[in-house]
Formats: sequence, C-alpha cells, structure tokens
Amino acid sequence: MKTIKSKFDTFRHQTNIVIYGTNTASGRLFDLVLLGIIVLSVIIVMLETVKGFDKKYHHELIILEWIITIFFTLEYILRIISLKKPLKYIFSFYGIIDLIATLPMYLSLFYFGTSILTIVRALRLLRLFKILKHPQFSSQSNHLKEALIASRGKILIFIYFMLISSIVIGSLMYVVEGKEGGFTSIPISIYWTIVTLTTVGYGDISPITPLGQGIASLVMIMGYGIIAVPTGIVTAEFANNNRKKTNAKNSNPCPNCGTEGHEYNAKYCYHCGADLK
Amino acid sequence: MKTIKSKFDTFRHQTNIVIYGTNTASGRLFDLVLLGIIVLSVIIVMLETVKGFDKKYHHELIILEWIITIFFTLEYILRIISLKKPLKYIFSFYGIIDLIATLPMYLSLFYFGTSILTIVRALRLLRLFKILKHPQFSSQSNHLKEALIASRGKILIFIYFMLISSIVIGSLMYVVEGKEGGFTSIPISIYWTIVTLTTVGYGDISPITPLGQGIASLVMIMGYGIIAVPTGIVTAEFANNNRKKTNAKNSNPCPNCGTEGHEYNAKYCYHCGADLK
Amino acid sequence: MKTIKSKFDTFRHQTNIVIYGTNTASGRLFDLVLLGIIVLSVIIVMLETVKGFDKKYHHELIILEWIITIFFTLEYILRIISLKKPLKYIFSFYGIIDLIATLPMYLSLFYFGTSILTIVRALRLLRLFKILKHPQFSSQSNHLKEALIASRGKILIFIYFMLISSIVIGSLMYVVEGKEGGFTSIPISIYWTIVTLTTVGYGDISPITPLGQGIASLVMIMGYGIIAVPTGIVTAEFANNNRKKTNAKNSNPCPNCGTEGHEYNAKYCYHCGADLK
Amino acid sequence: MKTIKSKFDTFRHQTNIVIYGTNTASGRLFDLVLLGIIVLSVIIVMLETVKGFDKKYHHELIILEWIITIFFTLEYILRIISLKKPLKYIFSFYGIIDLIATLPMYLSLFYFGTSILTIVRALRLLRLFKILKHPQFSSQSNHLKEALIASRGKILIFIYFMLISSIVIGSLMYVVEGKEGGFTSIPISIYWTIVTLTTVGYGDISPITPLGQGIASLVMIMGYGIIAVPTGIVTAEFANNNRKKTNAKNSNPCPNCGTEGHEYNAKYCYHCGADLK
Repeated sequence: MKTIKSKFDTFRHQTNIVIYGTNTASGRLFDLVLLGIIVLSVIIVMLETVKGFDKKYHHELIILEWIITIFFTLEYILRIISLKKPLKYIFSFYGIIDLIATLPMYLSLFYFGTSILTIVRALRLLRLFKILKHPQFSSQSNHLKEALIASRGKILIFIYFMLISSIVIGSLMYVVEGKEGGFTSIPISIYWTIVTLTTVGYGDISPITPLGQGIASLVMIMGYGIIAVPTGIVTAEFANNNRKKTNAKNSNPCPNCGTEGHEYNAKYCYHCGADLK
Repeated sequence: MKTIKSKFDTFRHQTNIVIYGTNTASGRLFDLVLLGIIVLSVIIVMLETVKGFDKKYHHELIILEWIITIFFTLEYILRIISLKKPLKYIFSFYGIIDLIATLPMYLSLFYFGTSILTIVRALRLLRLFKILKHPQFSSQSNHLKEALIASRGKILIFIYFMLISSIVIGSLMYVVEGKEGGFTSIPISIYWTIVTLTTVGYGDISPITPLGQGIASLVMIMGYGIIAVPTGIVTAEFANNNRKKTNAKNSNPCPNCGTEGHEYNAKYCYHCGADLK
Repeated sequence: MKTIKSKFDTFRHQTNIVIYGTNTASGRLFDLVLLGIIVLSVIIVMLETVKGFDKKYHHELIILEWIITIFFTLEYILRIISLKKPLKYIFSFYGIIDLIATLPMYLSLFYFGTSILTIVRALRLLRLFKILKHPQFSSQSNHLKEALIASRGKILIFIYFMLISSIVIGSLMYVVEGKEGGFTSIPISIYWTIVTLTTVGYGDISPITPLGQGIASLVMIMGYGIIAVPTGIVTAEFANNNRKKTNAKNSNPCPNCGTEGHEYNAKYCYHCGADLK
Repeated sequence: MKTIKSKFDTFRHQTNIVIYGTNTASGRLFDLVLLGIIVLSVIIVMLETVKGFDKKYHHELIILEWIITIFFTLEYILRIISLKKPLKYIFSFYGIIDLIATLPMYLSLFYFGTSILTIVRALRLLRLFKILKHPQFSSQSNHLKEALIASRGKILIFIYFMLISSIVIGSLMYVVEGKEGGFTSIPISIYWTIVTLTTVGYGDISPITPLGQGIASLVMIMGYGIIAVPTGIVTAEFANNNRKKTNAKNSNPCPNCGTEGHEYNAKYCYHCGADLK
C-alpha cells in the first residue's frame, strides 16, 4: 500500500513540476505546447462559423475539437490531482476559466448550438501572462496595472459625465432631428451620441437637418477635445510612476538604519539623523 | 400656537437632516432612493419613445411618470420648506434643475408633446456628486476640475483656430468638389470638415474627385496630428498638479537651517541633521 | 498750405489711434465693430451657397455684401493713409489678407463666380489675436506656439514615416483587394490607407476579402497605436515648458549680480559665487 | 597592368565618395538626384494603375519606367563595385531594398503583372534618413527611436490584451447580432470589433439589435478610453527622455565638494561656492 501511495506522490510531484513549473525544460515545453493548443482551439471555433470553410471541413473540425476538448479535460484533471490543496485552484480565476473551456463541448451533446460557447477558450490565452515570468516583463505589466488602478477614480467620474452628456444630447437630437435621419427613439439617439462622441462615426445614423448638423458638430468637437481627459489622467500616472522609480534609483540606503529614498543631495538620514557618508 | 410653531420647527429640522444630510442612516437612504427614482424616471422617458414598447405599455408608463412627477414635486416643496432661507436654493443650479424636472409633465396637460422635455431629469443625475462626499472621491473630482480650468485658455485658442480652419477648408472643398460628392453648400462643407478633422468620419459626405481626396487626406493627417494639442495641454496640467501635490506634502522647512523639500515622513533634516519636529 | 498739412497730420494721427490702438475706448470699439462685420461677412458668403436661402434673399445678400466690401475697402485705405511708412503693413501677413478680402467682389463684376472667393475673409478672423492683447492670454498663446515649434522636427519625421507607410500599405491593398471593394488604383488605395490610419473611416471604400480585412485590422491597430507618437511629442514639450516655468519661479535673484534660476537649495550664486542669503 | 588597377582604384574611390559621401558637393548632388528619381519612380507606378491616365500615356510610362530601372541597376552595380567589402552592403537592409527595387521590372518580361511590385521602390524613400545627417535632425530621430524602444514591452502587452478582447467581444457580437447586421462569422465579427475599438468605424457592418448596440456602445467607450494607455506609455517615455537630457546637461560635479546638479552655465558650486572651472 505504501509503495502505491508513494508512487502516486512521486507522480503528483512530477506532474506538478511539469504543469505548474516554469524553470525546468519539461515545464517550459508543456507551457508552450499548451499555448499552441489554445491558439489552435480558438482558430478552430472561428473557422466553424465561416460558412464556406465549415461546409468543406465540417467533419475534420469536429474531430479536432473533440481531441482538444479531451486534452483540456485531462489537463484539468491533472491540474487538480497534482495539487495537495486543489480547492484554491478550482475556485481561482484561471481555474474557473479552465473548467468552462471544456464544458460547452460536452453540453453540445445534449443541447444543440452550445459548442459556440467554446470561444471562451480565448480567455485561456491570458495564461501567457503566467508563462512569461521574466522579471523585466512582469515589472512592465505591474507598471501598467498600477497606473490604471491609480487613475481608476478619475476615469469613473469621467465616464459618468460622458453617460449623462450622452443622455441629454441624445434626447436633444431626438427632438431636433425627428425620424428621417434615423433618430427613431431616445435610446437610438443616445447610441448615435456615443458613436459620435467617441469619434467612431459609423454613419448608419447621421443628422440631416441644419440644426442637427450644427449640434452634431459641437458634439464632435467635444468628443475630440475630451479624449484629452482620460489620456491626461493615465499619462500623468505613468509619468508619476516613472518619476518615483527614477527618484528611488538615486538613493543609497542609510548605513545606520537602512532607510531608502533619500534626496539626491542629502547629507543626513531623514529617518535616524545618521551621517549618510 | 407656540406648540404648532415648535412642532413645525422640529419637522423642518428633521426633514432638513433627511433631505440634505449625508451622515445619518436616513439621510443616506433618502439619497439612494432619490437616485434610484431619478434613474427610473430617465429610463421611463426613454422607453416612451421606443415605438414597440410604448404601444404595449403606454398606460403603465404614463401612470409611473405621474407618480414620479408627484414624488419630485413633493420633494421640491419639502426642500424649500425645510430651509430657513430657501431663496438661495431656489436660484441655485440644482434648484433650477429640480424645478424644471417637474414642470414639463404639468405643461403636457395643456400642450401636447411637451412630456418629452422631462428628459431634463437626466441632469438630476449630477446629484450623485453631492451624494458621494467621500473625501478621496471629491479630491479626485477637484483634481479633474482644476486641470480643466487651468487649461481653459489654451483650449479656447485651440478651438478658435479649429473653427477658422474649418471655415477656410470647408469653403475650399465646396469650390473643389462641387455638388456630386454631397458638398452642396459651404455650411455643409464646413460640417464635413469638422466630421473629418475630428476623425469621426460618417461617410455620408465624402470627396470623389482626386483633388478633393488629396485635400481630404491632408485634413485627416492634420486632424490626426492636432489632437495632440488638447491632449498635451490637459496632460501637462494633470502632471503639474500631481507634481505640486507631491511637492506640497514633502515641504515643511527645517526649523534649524530652513532647508525645504524633505521626504514627507522625514524625522531629521537631510541637510543639517536637526530634528524636524 | 501749412494748416492743411497739419490738419491731415492730426487726422492721420487720430485715425491711427482708432484703427491700430487698443487702449482707448474708440480703439477698442473699432476693433469690436470690425470683428462683428467680419463675422457677418463670413456668414453672408456661407448663406449665399445655401440654395433655398439664396433664392429667397438673393437681392438682400448682394446688397449687404457690397456694403461690407465698401466698408473693408475704406478701412484698407485708411489703414494705409494713417501710417507714416505703409509699405511694411501692405506686405505683411495681415496686410495681404486685408487686400484679398476686398478684391474678389470687384473681380466678380468682370468674371462671373469669383464672389465665392470672398470666403478668404474668414482669415481676417485671425485679427482676434491682435485684438486680444491681454497679457495672460498672449502668454498662453505663446506657450502653445513654443511647444509646437519645439516639436516640429519630430512631427515632420513622423509624418514622413506615415506617408511612406501609406504608399506601401496602399499598394499592398491594391494588389490584395482588387477592384470590387473600391480599390481601383494605387492613389485611391493610398487615400483609403490614410482614411484608415487616421481612424477617420468613412466607409466609402472598405476591404471585402478576408486577407484585405486582416491587413486592414493591422493598419487600424497601427493607426490607433501611433497616434501616441505625436501626442507624446507635444505633451512632453508642454510638460517641459511647464517645468521650466515652475523652476524659474523657485528662484530669487542673486543679491550681488541679479542672476536668476538658482537651484532650490543653492547657498551660493552659481554665477558670481556670492553668498545667496 | 598596374596602371589599369590603379585607375580602377581611383575610379572606385571617386565613385565611393559620390555615392556614399555626404560632405562633398557632388556627393550631396547625387543624393538629391537619387531621391528625386525615387519619388518620380513611385509616382509613375501609381499613375500606371489609374485607368484613364494609363490609357493615354501607357507608352510613355513604360519607357520612363525602363529608364529608371536601368538607372537603378547601374547605381546598384556601382554601389557594389565602389566598396572593398561589398558583402556587408549586399545583405544590409538598404542593400536588399535596392536590389528588389530593380528586379520586378526584369521579371515582368517573363511573368505578366509583376511590374506592380516595383512599388517596393517606395521603401527606398527611407534613404532620406541617410541623406539627412544634420546632427540636430538625427538627435531628434534617435530621441523618437529611444522612446519607442523603451515603451516596446508595455505596448506589446497592451496589443495582446486588445487582441484577446477583440476575440471575446467579436464572438459575443456574433452570437448576439446574428447575420442580419453583417456579423456573418466570428472572424468578420472580430474585424468589426477592431474597426470599433480603434474608433475607425467604417459602418459597412453595424449592429441593429438593441442589445448589440448596447454592447457596441460599451466597446466604443472602452476603445475611446484605452487609447489613453499607449499614449500614456509613449508620452511618459518622451517626458522621461527629455528630463534625462536636461539633467545630463547640467551635471558635472563640483571639484571641491562633489555636489551634482548644477545649472549648465554655472560658474560656481551652489553648495560650497567653489569655482567650477
């Protein structure tokens, strides 16, 4: 009995290294193969929706999908087995994505048409960020995250303002333009306002009365100008982060208490008052 | 008589706390309920303009609107009663919005079609900013406001330049393109120029002659490039504000040697080593 | 004889004050009236091109235009007379614009259709910048100008790169897409590339083959991304200017030699070595 | 024999100066003529694809193209001859472009339709950067390059995120919109998502169901907002570079006390007053 358990432990340990490890050759290889299969699976689901292609290769696509689904299922089971405390993984962000990446295919046996949901596998592409653990890379990634988190509050205020503006402008355009230009209801007019404010401009709905075109011009200039706001917010945070880093670099820690972050030309530690040189 | 007056005073005081206060539980609850009703009222007015929906639920929508209108009317009256000097509120920005949020519905009894104006209720959504009085949040909001106010002058010069450019380019395109491409008058051509300069690009009007397309290309590159100007202005102000704040935090001069620019958790002067507190 | 000359001198002097001055009440009034008439003249030329309006009020518009033309002609003559050395004005930027703002109307007596050229009067709107001589305003304007001049070199390199990219991508799309999607010649395809790179996107020409749509997607992402380049260039210049100003503020001039721009915590003048405190 | 070799050496040396040199008058002239001919060759290939023009001047265009091709061929041979170690040039970026700029025309003798590939000559326009060796200009160019290289990592992460988002959103829209709005397959829906996210907005495909328009609105706001990310990244790098340069100029340490960060025209140390030399 003991040997079986210890064999299983060894197997678990080795599987863990291959699946979760990124330092060994086999661990790296597994990650690359996995990423390749994820990309392949996403491409297959895409091609299934292209009429001409699907007609010709329907059979082959289905078989490939089942192979990938079984591979993903095995991988999911191994991921759980190889952990001592698998619950944390099961309920983590990646764990849930890994599960729902396999389910739709099995569901499609019972409910027709659910196989399209396998496209959620695209989310597995986020694993790339787990694979790329190069320190320089993840510092870049953190840098991005920090700047976005720091500017979150201002961005929310900005979006709230934009939504209120869209409602008011949309209603105004509904009253001014009438139904000929395509402004058939207030929600549609609000949709048009967002299309215009964000400078997307499909042109499926566009004003035809002089007054409507005048208001539209103002909306465009407004949209063109206020893009400066989110840009300004995020840029200032990036610049801030950069500055902090640069300043941090200039420091050499206090020889007495180890505090960092001294001014460039400091002579005494600001924390303990010890002479810095 | 005295008791009635004192009862009224108590009522006024309590109403005031509920309506204007944000610290008590009832005050917070009132704000949230109010915001919910405002959102509801905006959605109702929107749905009324959607043909299919309005046909089916016309009756219910009208009844809901009247309930909300009466609620808003009562709220407006209570707001006035609960203040000792109500005039300031009546003529304030929010006071006027609160009034015109109720009027259109009453007007619609006499003039057909004015109920659409109730959409101005969307402006009441701005109350959210009064409700959110969390210090961190309002500091963010102020930060935004300051940066925009500081860049006001430059933005105005920029818009003025854009308008003159639009008039000149629009007239040029009117002469070059003629009526086939849709450039039927100078105002329409100016409208097209703004659509193009702001990179919205509906495509309802677009040049068809080679020369017109050449000029249009220049206008696009110009529009693509000069978006840098408002963005640069606002961003520089944001960065400036950030810097000032960082600097402001760090500076209380050393009591011994007067050196400024200490870290904001510094205990000793980095220049002379004197105790900072 | 002498009195006539001295009368003329007085007249010239007073006219000069009214026309070129901005400090006296009459000078300010003249500027405002002039600006109003320029705006009016631009609006009239615009309205003339609007078919429905022109039919109804053709006569009135023509009369108004002649009145304004005669006013501008008189103003131009007075501007020349009231200067002692008028040549400098005549060949200046504003002088040439003032002249060509009056000519087209006289030309229209001989050549039909040239009255449309009176739209160049829109350029006279630039005079607003001469009228607004408020110091804070012109410092803002200079700030803008400096940043744009400083970033000129990089912007030119950027535009050159964009042009080469447009030629190469446009030719590629011409080969890939063929004539069905509207890519009928390389110049048209280059036009499409610029429309796409600048994110204008009219939609009059759009790719229909999968390969063409794939390349188009790359072009869009490229256009979306590289807008960061001009924005970054200009913003960095703005921030630079702001910083320089802020640093300049922190200085108190040397008590010995008056040099400004000392470091925050300088003890000795960097120019003459004198003790700063 | 010897004289022939030495004559050839002299010829090679002189050719080298003319072709590769930029300091002599003949070297400069050659560069300008070459650039002019490159521009001309690009224009000719463009005009050949314009139906109306090609019909009229087909003969002339072909003759001009052959003249230019022969000129480019001679230039290419001279470039190789005039170098002592020509292999480095042959396999360099410019060397390969120079070769493939001549080949298509010769190929067109055997394979019909390949003459269109001569448009790769547009890449020869990049030679302008070799010609412009003015120090201020190339410092600007380097400045641009450095900022872009420094922000490469973050930009890649950003594009990767955008691609995953496009796949997920595109699939969602495919499910939601169905085929009426033009969302006929997932790849097409992803194409639409990129068109919308980048705010290009052709309008050839646009959502028609309320839910689809709602999702589209979110995508637009997202696209409008996240343009801040690449802009912020690049701008922060530009600002960083600017700051570093400014700092670099100003710092040579005091020979007496070693203090850094002096103004760049400082004569005396601001810390100890010593002469800075």
